[in-house]
Amino acid sequence: MKLVAIGIVESPLTDRASAPKQGDEGAPEAWLAFEPAFADALDGIAAGDELLVLTWLDRARRDVLRVHPRGDPRRTQQGVFNTRSPDRPNPIGLHRVTVAEIDGTRMRVRELEALDGTPIVDVKPLLRAVDER
Amino acid sequence: MKLVAIGIVESPLTDRASAPKQGDEGAPEAWLAFEPAFADALDGIAAGDELLVLTWLDRARRDVLRVHPRGDPRRTQQGVFNTRSPDRPNPIGLHRVTVAEIDGTRMRVRELEALDGTPIVDVKPLLRAVDER
Repeated sequence: MKLVAIGIVESPLTDRASAPKQGDEGAPEAWLAFEPAFADALDGIAAGDELLVLTWLDRARRDVLRVHPRGDPRRTQQGVFNTRSPDRPNPIGLHRVTVAEIDGTRMRVRELEALDGTPIVDVKPLLRAVDER
Repeated sequence: MKLVAIGIVESPLTDRASAPKQGDEGAPEAWLAFEPAFADALDGIAAGDELLVLTWLDRARRDVLRVHPRGDPRRTQQGVFNTRSPDRPNPIGLHRVTVAEIDGTRMRVRELEALDGTPIVDVKPLLRAVDER
Protein backbone atom coordinates (compact mmCIF):
# COMPACT_ATOMS: atom_id res chain seq x y z
CA MET A 1 0.00 0.00 0.00
CA LYS A 2 2.17 2.78 -1.35
CA LEU A 3 0.79 6.25 -1.94
CA VAL A 4 1.86 8.50 -4.79
CA ALA A 5 1.79 12.29 -4.44
CA ILE A 6 -0.74 13.71 -6.88
CA GLY A 7 0.27 17.25 -5.93
CA ILE A 8 1.44 19.50 -3.13
CA VAL A 9 -0.03 22.16 -0.84
CA GLU A 10 1.28 25.71 -1.17
CA SER A 11 0.33 27.62 1.97
CA PRO A 12 1.52 30.48 4.16
CA LEU A 13 1.39 27.99 7.06
CA THR A 14 4.85 26.61 7.72
CA ASP A 15 4.83 25.17 11.20
CA ARG A 16 2.44 23.01 13.09
CA ALA A 17 2.43 25.08 16.29
CA SER A 18 0.91 28.10 14.56
CA ALA A 19 -1.48 26.26 12.22
CA PRO A 20 -5.19 26.08 13.09
CA LYS A 21 -6.32 22.61 14.14
CA GLN A 22 -9.13 22.58 11.55
CA GLY A 23 -9.83 24.60 8.42
CA ASP A 24 -12.88 26.31 9.90
CA GLU A 25 -10.85 27.59 12.83
CA GLY A 26 -9.29 30.43 10.86
CA ALA A 27 -7.20 28.62 8.25
CA PRO A 28 -5.99 30.68 5.28
CA GLU A 29 -6.38 30.16 1.57
CA ALA A 30 -3.92 27.80 -0.07
CA TRP A 31 -3.05 26.56 -3.54
CA LEU A 32 -3.24 22.92 -4.48
CA ALA A 33 -0.57 22.39 -7.12
CA PHE A 34 -1.39 19.13 -8.89
CA GLU A 35 1.05 17.14 -10.99
CA PRO A 36 0.21 17.73 -14.67
CA ALA A 37 0.04 13.94 -15.16
CA PHE A 38 -3.22 13.96 -13.17
CA ALA A 39 -4.91 16.80 -15.09
CA ASP A 40 -7.57 14.47 -16.54
CA ALA A 41 -8.56 13.32 -13.06
CA LEU A 42 -9.54 16.92 -12.16
CA ASP A 43 -11.98 17.19 -15.04
CA GLY A 44 -15.34 18.62 -14.00
CA ILE A 45 -14.24 20.35 -10.79
CA ALA A 46 -15.27 24.02 -10.83
CA ALA A 47 -14.97 27.15 -8.69
CA GLY A 48 -17.51 27.04 -5.88
CA ASP A 49 -17.33 23.26 -5.47
CA GLU A 50 -16.83 21.78 -2.01
CA LEU A 51 -14.21 19.06 -1.92
CA LEU A 52 -12.56 16.69 0.49
CA VAL A 53 -8.80 16.83 0.12
CA LEU A 54 -6.74 13.96 1.50
CA THR A 55 -3.12 14.68 2.36
CA TRP A 56 -0.12 12.88 3.79
CA LEU A 57 0.78 14.69 7.02
CA ASP A 58 4.50 14.27 6.54
CA ARG A 59 5.50 16.03 9.76
CA ALA A 60 3.32 13.86 12.01
CA ARG A 61 4.48 11.04 14.30
CA ARG A 62 3.33 7.53 13.45
CA ASP A 63 4.17 5.87 16.77
CA VAL A 64 1.64 7.75 18.90
CA LEU A 65 -1.52 5.84 19.89
CA ARG A 66 -2.97 8.08 22.64
CA VAL A 67 -3.06 11.87 22.90
CA HIS A 68 -4.63 14.66 24.92
CA PRO A 69 -7.40 15.95 22.62
CA ARG A 70 -6.39 19.20 20.95
CA GLY A 71 -3.05 18.97 22.76
CA ASP A 72 -4.75 20.17 25.96
CA PRO A 73 -3.13 18.44 28.96
CA ARG A 74 -6.25 19.12 31.07
CA ARG A 75 -8.24 16.76 28.86
CA THR A 76 -8.10 13.00 29.42
CA GLN A 77 -5.99 11.08 26.92
CA GLN A 78 -7.90 9.37 24.12
CA GLY A 79 -6.98 6.90 21.42
CA VAL A 80 -5.83 8.76 18.32
CA PHE A 81 -8.64 7.12 16.30
CA ASN A 82 -11.06 9.01 18.56
CA THR A 83 -9.36 12.33 17.73
CA ARG A 84 -8.29 14.34 14.70
CA SER A 85 -4.66 14.44 15.85
CA PRO A 86 -2.21 14.40 12.92
CA ASP A 87 -0.15 11.91 14.93
CA ARG A 88 -1.52 8.45 14.06
CA PRO A 89 -0.31 5.19 12.46
CA ASN A 90 -1.21 6.37 8.94
CA PRO A 91 -1.09 10.18 9.02
CA ILE A 92 -3.72 10.90 6.39
CA GLY A 93 -5.21 14.38 6.65
CA LEU A 94 -8.84 14.95 5.69
CA HIS A 95 -9.73 18.53 4.79
CA ARG A 96 -12.99 20.05 3.63
CA VAL A 97 -12.35 23.01 1.34
CA THR A 98 -14.17 25.26 -1.11
CA VAL A 99 -12.66 25.87 -4.54
CA ALA A 100 -12.08 29.60 -5.10
CA GLU A 101 -10.24 29.50 -8.45
CA ILE A 102 -8.87 27.03 -10.96
CA ASP A 103 -5.82 27.78 -13.12
CA GLY A 104 -4.87 24.73 -15.18
CA THR A 105 -3.75 22.09 -12.69
CA ARG A 106 -3.53 24.63 -9.86
CA MET A 107 -6.49 25.22 -7.59
CA ARG A 108 -6.94 27.96 -5.00
CA VAL A 109 -8.99 26.76 -2.03
CA ARG A 110 -10.40 28.33 1.10
CA GLU A 111 -9.75 27.29 4.68
CA LEU A 112 -7.02 24.69 4.50
CA GLU A 113 -5.02 24.01 7.67
CA ALA A 114 -2.38 21.79 6.00
CA LEU A 115 1.21 23.04 6.06
CA ASP A 116 3.18 24.29 3.07
CA GLY A 117 4.73 21.37 1.20
CA THR A 118 2.24 18.75 2.40
CA PRO A 119 1.74 16.04 -0.27
CA ILE A 120 -1.80 15.65 -1.62
CA VAL A 121 -2.93 12.05 -2.13
CA ASP A 122 -6.61 12.23 -3.12
CA VAL A 123 -9.53 14.55 -3.83
CA LYS A 124 -13.21 13.61 -3.54
CA PRO A 125 -16.42 15.58 -4.01
CA LEU A 126 -18.74 16.04 -1.06
CA LEU A 127 -21.62 13.62 -1.46
CA ARG A 128 -24.98 15.06 -2.35
CA ALA A 129 -28.33 13.63 -1.23
CA VAL A 130 -28.93 10.03 -2.31
CA ASP A 131 -31.33 10.97 -5.12
CA GLU A 132 -28.94 13.57 -6.58
CA ARG A 133 -25.87 11.36 -6.95
CA MET B 1 4.39 7.11 1.92
CA LYS B 2 3.64 3.53 2.94
CA LEU B 3 0.42 2.62 4.66
CA VAL B 4 0.13 -0.07 7.32
CA ALA B 5 -3.08 -2.06 7.76
CA ILE B 6 -4.53 -1.31 11.18
CA GLY B 7 -7.25 -3.90 10.65
CA ILE B 8 -9.51 -5.53 8.13
CA VAL B 9 -13.18 -5.38 7.11
CA GLU B 10 -15.32 -8.49 7.64
CA SER B 11 -18.43 -8.16 5.50
CA PRO B 12 -20.98 -10.28 3.64
CA LEU B 13 -20.08 -8.20 0.56
CA THR B 14 -17.59 -10.09 -1.57
CA ASP B 15 -17.72 -8.58 -5.03
CA ARG B 16 -17.77 -5.08 -6.31
CA ALA B 17 -20.60 -5.57 -8.79
CA SER B 18 -23.13 -6.38 -6.07
CA ALA B 19 -21.91 -3.89 -3.45
CA PRO B 20 -23.82 -0.62 -2.93
CA LYS B 21 -21.93 2.43 -4.16
CA GLN B 22 -22.28 4.19 -0.78
CA GLY B 23 -23.09 3.01 2.72
CA ASP B 24 -26.43 4.81 2.81
CA GLU B 25 -27.59 3.02 -0.34
CA GLY B 26 -28.43 -0.21 1.46
CA ALA B 27 -25.05 -1.41 2.73
CA PRO B 28 -25.06 -4.11 5.39
CA GLU B 29 -23.48 -4.24 8.81
CA ALA B 30 -19.85 -5.22 8.93
CA TRP B 31 -17.18 -5.94 11.53
CA LEU B 32 -13.99 -3.93 11.74
CA ALA B 33 -11.35 -6.33 13.06
CA PHE B 34 -8.48 -4.20 14.33
CA GLU B 35 -4.97 -5.46 14.95
CA PRO B 36 -4.50 -5.85 18.73
CA ALA B 37 -1.35 -3.71 18.49
CA PHE B 38 -3.60 -0.70 17.86
CA ALA B 39 -5.99 -1.30 20.78
CA ASP B 40 -4.84 1.85 22.61
CA ALA B 41 -5.63 3.98 19.56
CA LEU B 42 -9.31 2.96 19.82
CA ASP B 43 -9.63 4.18 23.38
CA GLY B 44 -12.73 6.31 23.94
CA ILE B 45 -14.77 5.09 20.96
CA ALA B 46 -18.21 3.87 22.09
CA ALA B 47 -21.36 2.32 20.65
CA GLY B 48 -23.47 4.98 18.99
CA ASP B 49 -20.48 7.03 17.80
CA GLU B 50 -20.33 8.14 14.19
CA LEU B 51 -16.93 7.56 12.62
CA LEU B 52 -15.14 8.04 9.34
CA VAL B 53 -13.35 4.86 8.35
CA LEU B 54 -10.57 5.07 5.77
CA THR B 55 -9.76 1.92 3.84
CA TRP B 56 -7.41 0.79 1.08
CA LEU B 57 -9.62 -0.31 -1.83
CA ASP B 58 -7.38 -3.17 -2.82
CA ARG B 59 -9.50 -4.32 -5.76
CA ALA B 60 -9.57 -0.90 -7.45
CA ARG B 61 -7.60 0.20 -10.51
CA ARG B 62 -5.00 2.91 -10.01
CA ASP B 63 -4.47 3.81 -13.68
CA VAL B 64 -7.95 5.23 -14.33
CA LEU B 65 -8.25 9.04 -14.47
CA ARG B 66 -11.73 9.50 -15.99
CA VAL B 67 -14.93 7.52 -15.45
CA HIS B 68 -18.63 7.63 -16.15
CA PRO B 69 -20.13 8.70 -12.79
CA ARG B 70 -21.67 5.71 -10.99
CA GLY B 71 -20.58 3.52 -13.90
CA ASP B 72 -23.50 4.84 -15.96
CA PRO B 73 -22.43 5.09 -19.63
CA ARG B 74 -25.20 7.66 -20.28
CA ARG B 75 -23.45 10.15 -18.02
CA THR B 76 -20.55 12.24 -19.33
CA GLN B 77 -17.12 11.11 -18.21
CA GLN B 78 -15.62 13.05 -15.31
CA GLY B 79 -12.23 13.15 -13.68
CA VAL B 80 -12.05 10.57 -10.90
CA PHE B 81 -11.31 13.35 -8.37
CA ASN B 82 -14.79 14.70 -9.18
CA THR B 83 -16.37 11.31 -8.38
CA ARG B 84 -16.38 8.72 -5.60
CA SER B 85 -15.17 5.98 -7.94
CA PRO B 86 -12.94 3.44 -6.15
CA ASP B 87 -10.70 3.56 -9.24
CA ARG B 88 -8.22 6.42 -8.64
CA PRO B 89 -4.47 6.95 -8.28
CA ASN B 90 -4.56 6.31 -4.51
CA PRO B 91 -7.60 4.11 -3.87
CA ILE B 92 -8.46 5.32 -0.38
CA GLY B 93 -12.05 4.64 0.61
CA LEU B 94 -13.87 7.05 2.93
CA HIS B 95 -16.85 5.58 4.77
CA ARG B 96 -19.18 7.14 7.32
CA VAL B 97 -20.43 4.52 9.76
CA THR B 98 -22.21 4.24 13.09
CA VAL B 99 -20.76 2.00 15.79
CA ALA B 100 -23.29 -0.67 16.83
CA GLU B 101 -21.14 -2.75 19.20
CA ILE B 102 -17.59 -2.98 20.49
CA ASP B 103 -15.99 -6.27 21.51
CA GLY B 104 -12.34 -5.76 22.43
CA THR B 105 -10.59 -4.70 19.24
CA ARG B 106 -13.55 -5.74 17.08
CA MET B 107 -16.23 -3.22 16.20
CA ARG B 108 -19.58 -3.87 14.54
CA VAL B 109 -20.67 -0.95 12.34
CA ARG B 110 -23.73 -0.07 10.33
CA GLU B 111 -23.87 0.70 6.63
CA LEU B 112 -20.43 -0.09 5.28
CA GLU B 113 -20.09 -0.69 1.54
CA ALA B 114 -16.47 -1.91 1.66
CA LEU B 115 -15.83 -5.50 0.55
CA ASP B 116 -14.82 -8.37 2.80
CA GLY B 117 -11.07 -8.36 3.37
CA THR B 118 -10.56 -4.66 2.65
CA PRO B 119 -7.65 -3.28 4.73
CA ILE B 120 -8.49 -0.47 7.17
CA VAL B 121 -5.92 2.34 7.33
CA ASP B 122 -7.43 5.01 9.58
CA VAL B 123 -10.42 5.93 11.76
CA LYS B 124 -11.49 9.46 12.64
CA PRO B 125 -14.40 10.87 14.62
CA LEU B 126 -16.93 13.07 12.87
CA LEU B 127 -16.19 16.65 13.81
CA ARG B 128 -18.60 18.40 16.14
CA ALA B 129 -19.43 22.10 16.05
CA VAL B 130 -16.42 24.37 16.52
CA ASP B 131 -17.27 25.23 20.14
CA GLU B 132 -17.71 21.57 21.12
CA ARG B 133 -14.34 20.26 19.93
